[in-house]
Amino acid sequence: MKKHNFYAGPSILPQEAIDATIEALKDFSGTGLSLASVSHRSKEFDAVINEAIALFKELLNIPQGYSVLFMGGGASTQFALVPFNLMKKRAVYVNTGTWSAKALKEAKLFGDVVEIKNPDFFSLPKGIEVHKDTDYVHITTNNTIYGTEYHEDMDFGVPLVADMSSDIFSRPIDISKYAIIYGGAQKNLAPAGLTFVIVKDEVLGQVDHKIPTMLDYRTFVTKNSMFNTPPVIPIFTALQTLKWIKTNGGVAAMYKLNTEKANLLYAEIDRNPLFKGTVAKEDRSLMNICFVMEEQYKDLEADFLAFATAQQMVGIKGHRSVGGFRASTYNALSKESVEALIATMQEFEKKNS
Amino acid sequence: MKKHNFYAGPSILPQEAIDATIEALKDFSGTGLSLASVSHRSKEFDAVINEAIALFKELLNIPQGYSVLFMGGGASTQFALVPFNLMKKRAVYVNTGTWSAKALKEAKLFGDVVEIKNPDFFSLPKGIEVHKDTDYVHITTNNTIYGTEYHEDMDFGVPLVADMSSDIFSRPIDISKYAIIYGGAQKNLAPAGLTFVIVKDEVLGQVDHKIPTMLDYRTFVTKNSMFNTPPVIPIFTALQTLKWIKTNGGVAAMYKLNTEKANLLYAEIDRNPLFKGTVAKEDRSLMNICFVMEEQYKDLEADFLAFATAQQMVGIKGHRSVGGFRASTYNALSKESVEALIATMQEFEKKNS
Repeated sequence: MKKHNFYAGPSILPQEAIDATIEALKDFSGTGLSLASVSHRSKEFDAVINEAIALFKELLNIPQGYSVLFMGGGASTQFALVPFNLMKKRAVYVNTGTWSAKALKEAKLFGDVVEIKNPDFFSLPKGIEVHKDTDYVHITTNNTIYGTEYHEDMDFGVPLVADMSSDIFSRPIDISKYAIIYGGAQKNLAPAGLTFVIVKDEVLGQVDHKIPTMLDYRTFVTKNSMFNTPPVIPIFTALQTLKWIKTNGGVAAMYKLNTEKANLLYAEIDRNPLFKGTVAKEDRSLMNICFVMEEQYKDLEADFLAFATAQQMVGIKGHRSVGGFRASTYNALSKESVEALIATMQEFEKKNS
Repeated sequence: MKKHNFYAGPSILPQEAIDATIEALKDFSGTGLSLASVSHRSKEFDAVINEAIALFKELLNIPQGYSVLFMGGGASTQFALVPFNLMKKRAVYVNTGTWSAKALKEAKLFGDVVEIKNPDFFSLPKGIEVHKDTDYVHITTNNTIYGTEYHEDMDFGVPLVADMSSDIFSRPIDISKYAIIYGGAQKNLAPAGLTFVIVKDEVLGQVDHKIPTMLDYRTFVTKNSMFNTPPVIPIFTALQTLKWIKTNGGVAAMYKLNTEKANLLYAEIDRNPLFKGTVAKEDRSLMNICFVMEEQYKDLEADFLAFATAQQMVGIKGHRSVGGFRASTYNALSKESVEALIATMQEFEKKNS
């Protein structure tokens, strides 16, 4: 039976991208060798990474003066690399949950950090004013654990750095508003093990301290992400995902479908008397839809999880730090899977009324 | 027609490991989901990483008090992480080629570095004496580009750090002689995108400077390499390779076969009047066998490369920094492929005599 994959990440990828990866593991690009066993310096892989970078830029409409980098180590490593490359004296971190708190912690090793946060993480701080003498502002545009998301590109009058691990390619963005965008690729793009960075070239090389070669974005800019061996399979799969996005109408079409899916599920959460959303309505994420049982039904949580699991729903348990439920509805998740979850919620409502 | 894969890395892996990876990309461990789309926090992946670490320790006979870590970023990132985690004041770097020179360059950002090297890289420095007041000695046990290799475990009386990117699992080693062993996994273990570290726990936590979380080995020790999302597919494939090594007799059997393959090929290089080896005989690598045309046949190099390519030999062109030819003969390369290369060399000899 078909599973409905609501994992928060690593998570669902287009079946076409997985199928193409399987074929390449059998015979990569007519080489007679597996993608797992081919040199990253081969002309065949060179074509893959070049096409992946070009299509990445095309789909996000990335302007001149920006580079797209493929790295390893995950977004968690970027938490240190951002201040390593950008921090001269002081940065502002908007703390909107677990991941931005981790980013902030690393930045404190490199300079003064001003923290901006709400009393809880179920809404995003509004009306932020930033002192001009700030190296950069760091935000997490989508908070995978708490289910909040920025729905517009922010502008604080100083360089903006954004962790977009879980919403990259889910909606059109105005890249020119950002100095750096980074993220783990294992949600909307590729299997785990790949990190993407979009960097405005002119912000680099401004710090006084020395940066180790592999922690310096300029190494990846000048070497086209091939200073050393890159994560070959995830880059290949990323290219297939990018092709799938293009074939299916580009980022604007992803956004339209993601909005439809999220609206359907939030409407059911709001309608169904057993459930309630956890996040301020204006800040609700299109990618990670968090909900809990209403107070009087709290003791049904384990029942609902078991019932949904029996209906082939996978990964809807909320993160251990917040509890309840979370349905991650990334690009590759079909509307059919969202409808199946809604049907499950409605059946559970009937069973318990 | 079957290709003979002599790539230096990423390079040949056991077909069984690739086949198992393909099956897992279709359906991972009976989950009904692809390995590319499954949470690293799932119990199924937890079993994979635990088994991989256990088998890694078993096959290398790793004693108590050592941890095995899986990271991203490649050995090039380790060039910075080693001094970040170990350097208090001074280290000795034995410079035996391109990769150790790169490691040395990063170490200089963290403290004083004593460099030991021969006039060229075609032999290894002997009789090294190290001052007791040295934090560690760094060696590259196998030099992929120049084709030299240490054939015994060294002991300089201070902590020893070794880059074993290209010879890990190729021969038995006495782990107790080392403080840290690290390497890119993309030669004898897994597809590109995975880095392994074997660390003696007690050497950590001795430096005064602060270490960012993801650059601190202790993060990976305490979190079983799962502080953040690890490279899922390469870890899965690594486990399959480790199983293949075990099934085929373990590291001792790999060493026996690698020695046989290397002896066959070096014997042909020494016998065939067209070719000559480039490396001092006692330091010849079992993994990367480098050779050139004799002076009077230099203008036949391009001919031989074309002839060998037509015979389905892949990846035998020498590294751009040294020229000539290089046959990498990792664990998964069969004796049949070495015999095919030897036959090609002999045919070419006949054609040109």
